[in-house]
Amino acid sequence: MDPDGLAKAFVNHYYTTFDTNRAALVGLYQEGSMLTFEGDKYKGAAAITGKLTSLPFATCKHQVTTVDCQPSGPAGGMLVFVSGALQVGDGEHPLKFSQMFHLMPVGPGNFHVQNDMFRLNYG
Amino acid sequence: MDPDGLAKAFVNHYYTTFDTNRAALVGLYQEGSMLTFEGDKYKGAAAITGKLTSLPFATCKHQVTTVDCQPSGPAGGMLVFVSGALQVGDGEHPLKFSQMFHLMPVGPGNFHVQNDMFRLNYG
Repeated sequence: MDPDGLAKAFVNHYYTTFDTNRAALVGLYQEGSMLTFEGDKYKGAAAITGKLTSLPFATCKHQVTTVDCQPSGPAGGMLVFVSGALQVGDGEHPLKFSQMFHLMPVGPGNFHVQNDMFRLNYG
Repeated sequence: MDPDGLAKAFVNHYYTTFDTNRAALVGLYQEGSMLTFEGDKYKGAAAITGKLTSLPFATCKHQVTTVDCQPSGPAGGMLVFVSGALQVGDGEHPLKFSQMFHLMPVGPGNFHVQNDMFRLNYG
C-alpha cells in the first residue's frame, strides 16, 4: 500500500476504534509513546489510554476532513496530519479538531503510535 | 533551552521571517525537506520556498494560539504542532490554521525543517 493509502487506513482504524471501543486503543501505543492532549502530556500506553478512556463523554464520533502524510526519516516512520470534526454525545454541535501522529514501523505494514498531539480548533 | 522553549523560539522565528521576508525561509529547509501545503506536495528548499513566496498575497501576519512539542525519536528531532490565525492583506478576516513541523538538529541548538504540513481550518 502506498503511504497515503496507509495513512488513510490508519486514520480510519484509529477513529473507528476510538468511537466504538476506546480502551482498545492501548494496542496502538507502546511504553515510549507520547500524547499531548489539549496541552496536557501523557507518556506510555497505560497513561495515554487512561486519559483517552476518561474523557468526559460516553459516546463520540470523529469525522475526518483531511489526511496528509510524509515519511519522517530513515527509520521508516510516517507523519500523519489530520483535520476533522468531533461530535460528542447526541445532538451537540461538532467540534473542529487537528491531530498529528508519528507512526513507527513494528513489522511489515504494522505501526505503533510514537507521537500523538491533539488540539480542538476553537473559534 | 528546554524543548518547549526551543519550540516556541523556532515558531516565533519562523512566522516572523514568513511575515517580513518570506524568501529568507529558504535557509530553514534542506534538499530532503518536504512541505505539504493544503494537500499539495513540495520537496527541497528551492521548491518549498518557491511555493511560499508565490502565495497570492503581498503581506500577511501569523498570530500563534498554541504550540505543542514532543521529541520525535533517537535522532534528536522535535515535532512542533501549531495552531493560529493568519491575516492576509489589510482588514480581511483572519483564517485559522494548523501546521506541524518536524525539526532535525544540524548542530547545537540549530535545526532545519525536515517536514512541514499546513492546513487552513475552514469553519
